[in-house]
Amino acid sequence: MLREAIYHRAGNNYAYAYDETTLHIRLRTKKGDVDSVTLIHGDPYDWTKDGWQTSRSLMTLSGTDEYFDYYFIAIKPPFRRLRYGFELKNGDEKLVFTEKGFYNDAPFDDTAYYFCFPFLNGIDVFRAPSWVKDTVWYQIFPERFANGDTSNDPEGSLPWASEEPKFNNFFGGDFQGVIDHIDHLVKLGVTGIYFTPIFKAKSNHKYDTIDYLEIDPQFGDKETFKQLVKVCHENGIKVMLDAVFNHSGYYFEPFQDVLQNQENSSYKNWFHLREFPIQTEPRPNYDAFAFEKAMPKLNTENPEVRDYLLKVARYWVEEFDIDGWRLDVANEVDHSFWREFRTAVKSIKPDAYILGEIWHDSMNWLQGDQFDAVMNYPFTNAALDFVAKETIDAKVFAEKITAVLHMYPENVNEAAFNLLGSHDTKRVLTFCDENKDKMKLLFLLMLTFKGTPCIYYGDEIGMTGGNDPGCRKCMEWDETEQDLDLFNHIQSLLTLRQNHKVLANDGEIKFINATEQTLVYERSTEEESIWILLNASENSADLSIDIPEGYSLILGSSISDSLPAYGFSIYRRN
Amino acid sequence: MLREAIYHRAGNNYAYAYDETTLHIRLRTKKGDVDSVTLIHGDPYDWTKDGWQTSRSLMTLSGTDEYFDYYFIAIKPPFRRLRYGFELKNGDEKLVFTEKGFYNDAPFDDTAYYFCFPFLNGIDVFRAPSWVKDTVWYQIFPERFANGDTSNDPEGSLPWASEEPKFNNFFGGDFQGVIDHIDHLVKLGVTGIYFTPIFKAKSNHKYDTIDYLEIDPQFGDKETFKQLVKVCHENGIKVMLDAVFNHSGYYFEPFQDVLQNQENSSYKNWFHLREFPIQTEPRPNYDAFAFEKAMPKLNTENPEVRDYLLKVARYWVEEFDIDGWRLDVANEVDHSFWREFRTAVKSIKPDAYILGEIWHDSMNWLQGDQFDAVMNYPFTNAALDFVAKETIDAKVFAEKITAVLHMYPENVNEAAFNLLGSHDTKRVLTFCDENKDKMKLLFLLMLTFKGTPCIYYGDEIGMTGGNDPGCRKCMEWDETEQDLDLFNHIQSLLTLRQNHKVLANDGEIKFINATEQTLVYERSTEEESIWILLNASENSADLSIDIPEGYSLILGSSISDSLPAYGFSIYRRN
Repeated sequence: MLREAIYHRAGNNYAYAYDETTLHIRLRTKKGDVDSVTLIHGDPYDWTKDGWQTSRSLMTLSGTDEYFDYYFIAIKPPFRRLRYGFELKNGDEKLVFTEKGFYNDAPFDDTAYYFCFPFLNGIDVFRAPSWVKDTVWYQIFPERFANGDTSNDPEGSLPWASEEPKFNNFFGGDFQGVIDHIDHLVKLGVTGIYFTPIFKAKSNHKYDTIDYLEIDPQFGDKETFKQLVKVCHENGIKVMLDAVFNHSGYYFEPFQDVLQNQENSSYKNWFHLREFPIQTEPRPNYDAFAFEKAMPKLNTENPEVRDYLLKVARYWVEEFDIDGWRLDVANEVDHSFWREFRTAVKSIKPDAYILGEIWHDSMNWLQGDQFDAVMNYPFTNAALDFVAKETIDAKVFAEKITAVLHMYPENVNEAAFNLLGSHDTKRVLTFCDENKDKMKLLFLLMLTFKGTPCIYYGDEIGMTGGNDPGCRKCMEWDETEQDLDLFNHIQSLLTLRQNHKVLANDGEIKFINATEQTLVYERSTEEESIWILLNASENSADLSIDIPEGYSLILGSSISDSLPAYGFSIYRRN
Repeated sequence: MLREAIYHRAGNNYAYAYDETTLHIRLRTKKGDVDSVTLIHGDPYDWTKDGWQTSRSLMTLSGTDEYFDYYFIAIKPPFRRLRYGFELKNGDEKLVFTEKGFYNDAPFDDTAYYFCFPFLNGIDVFRAPSWVKDTVWYQIFPERFANGDTSNDPEGSLPWASEEPKFNNFFGGDFQGVIDHIDHLVKLGVTGIYFTPIFKAKSNHKYDTIDYLEIDPQFGDKETFKQLVKVCHENGIKVMLDAVFNHSGYYFEPFQDVLQNQENSSYKNWFHLREFPIQTEPRPNYDAFAFEKAMPKLNTENPEVRDYLLKVARYWVEEFDIDGWRLDVANEVDHSFWREFRTAVKSIKPDAYILGEIWHDSMNWLQGDQFDAVMNYPFTNAALDFVAKETIDAKVFAEKITAVLHMYPENVNEAAFNLLGSHDTKRVLTFCDENKDKMKLLFLLMLTFKGTPCIYYGDEIGMTGGNDPGCRKCMEWDETEQDLDLFNHIQSLLTLRQNHKVLANDGEIKFINATEQTLVYERSTEEESIWILLNASENSADLSIDIPEGYSLILGSSISDSLPAYGFSIYRRN
């Protein structure tokens, strides 16, 4: 057995409290290198005249990625304390792995050899709001969803969809438009809306905040927003807002004060100013988002800034009853601030959802003290590579998904924000070169995956668009121009997900087969099992696998021996 | 190159902020598998018409343990943001390792492949108080250090050292005794005292607190304690107290209330009571430290308990000017509590030292938001195994120390609390079977190591004793019974450490040679280099290494070709 490949460190995704009584423990080994792994475990203080009292429990192989196998076990230590080690076997070979290294036989003269989960303290358990797991989000870019009130259109607004979206054009989308079209969302099966920023700002995307305590007048006023939240809640829809706390906009009053008064500004410690006078060319001489002079980075270490932003965080929850915050450029703001942010928000609404925008490995933000979730771009990329771009086959897709699922604790995976696209990416249909069959498979993958999925406005009716600003077109409201077949497909998947929780978060994911472009996986609990089969190629594909007895088709093509091009089937065991 | 052995994950000991401008990055590879590692790095937003702007920096081999090599680099990203990957070479073979996996050639079409340190926020930097690095601690078990005031002796106290220590005997040690003997500590060169608990309790060790806000009357009163702190500070000695917050004592008033009023007690949520009525046999039916009925675990998730303990934490800093808290059984208390504890303590004394008692891997407590240090038992064990027990040779010792140093960030290592023994272990001289030469080498190892060393009272004058209670004998104050040769040895090492900061924390540690029981290592900065050579065997040993030119002896035996049995030499380059 390859010792260099064996990995475990107590903490992160390898040993964590799943809930108030359960620990999850994982071990990584070289792919195909080990026959079985047994956890040797005991309470650290449970000594009798016969020595340290331990148990042995067989771990299960929970997945395989490109180089590694992962073994898993859930343990409920009676006194919430655990010392543990691993016994690995391959044929006659045996190896014991502990915090102090490798042994031929497990040493029992001391507990100090062993890995330690010293105490399962409930307050430290990573705990996302329970409603999130069953929520299906819909992302709205308010300027482009619907214009329900022309009286608040910004000057120079263009007639709806009269032009392609540009960096600086406006079409008058607003809150009334969302209220007017709430039926569309209800019909689709959406139970949460994530709004990109709505606070007073200059641009059409509103990521350049001028005033965090005011609604942008082009969207309505605070009364309209209250009404919008009320309508959403009445329709079983949660509301999440976008908090742009990494940086302000150029026209944010404190930054304007700094520009005007330079070193004498009482706001000079609100930002990271490297020298005076402030200049914006060739690059800003103050910290900014990227090198964007119009987005000066806020100094969240300054208690005044902290107090101001935490006031904002509380205000919209307390006064407007919003259900979650999505945190823009969350990775560049200090951890210390996010800990206080979490405390502030949860003190008002304990089940508010806190979602960070992070594109890379996010383990450091998902320890239970900061975010409930991050935007799961690793899922997005694997799914697009497999189905849209066809740069990886089903086997590699399964390995990548296994790697993503093993990067984080299970309770983190259950609240992950899964998406196929957003206002920051090319639209998914455009990624698919407008191949709607591919797009259908992508939605199938996302809507049968653990986590909380999000549909970008308009994707459900076949809207296209390249990278920003192309992906920010005006929503198509002419039914004759909407792709209703696509809408029905997504709607039926949402219904299925709603009716079979095993497809959402309750069920484990197990890859049954992955050959060329065909993929078979199971979502299962002890009570229920659903098989999903799909063919992501343009040719029909033989299936090298039989559906076990007792399963019946609940969506898609009935399987004989093959699946049609881009075909899929969902079978369920009663 | 063995891909399965290659490890890096942004965070913890692999990528961290060393200070407000410097990132440290480490990579693990299979031992001897790689010729060179180059860091490919750039600002994530630094794109020009030529693409993403990156630099290449050669990493250095910072150490080798049993299975792995570790590569290291310090980087100062100009805009405090970094994306990075690793290029590994072995002969003609080349491999690029990124967050997304392995590549033959580094991909530059996107930054998303790369590991990310999104922003170096000063407030998140792990930062132990700067004075700690230069402090030499002396641990005092107050009941056994010196009896300076017989008027406060507890009933039934025995004449000083008239008996062996037992679990329940008393000898009347007190604060006045410490004050009276402060010269002993000054003479030795000590600059900090760590006191085991001093609060009102029943036992002789005082880990069973009755009142966290009162001094135990056998030690004196609050005035005596104030006087003690004053005397210490006047003599350049810091004072650290022991906080037993995991559990209270049996006679702690809230627990007595629970025993008396059971379910009706207003303190029933101060503990973890599993059922009523409370019983203590055969095991307590409430959570306790281990299964010790006299030490009921405190419910630190209860805001009342939290407020009480945080009041205690602040009180002794604010009113008595203590300099640090050592946290007993720190690993079993929730992380959330420790975060608040840190904030509370540092808000009063920003440079207070917070030291957790944790015997196992402590990475989860050393992220900058909880502790400044833990008790470095991995160092203790490696040193004792090598010198005292002779169960490992010099090579394995060097590997184990390398592993310890690479388990944590460098700034964590610099504040680590290094010890050879404590009130919880056999005394170091007893570990050495009373071989004083071995003991001298152990102190040499500890006092030329990174971190802040601690001497357990009496070790410096040759006291012996087995496990608790044997290690808690009355301090020997009769000079004719003290081992002054040992005292002089330790004193001279402290003087050396004081005069050559390179031996304390400024210098890197590099193992030059490790053959059988002889060890040669270097502590160096750019300005200064010190070589330490030692022979931990009972026979003289040939040295397979020459002292380079320009070095002169500053302590120990002059080297010809060999070192005498248990000999050592310290050479310095001017």
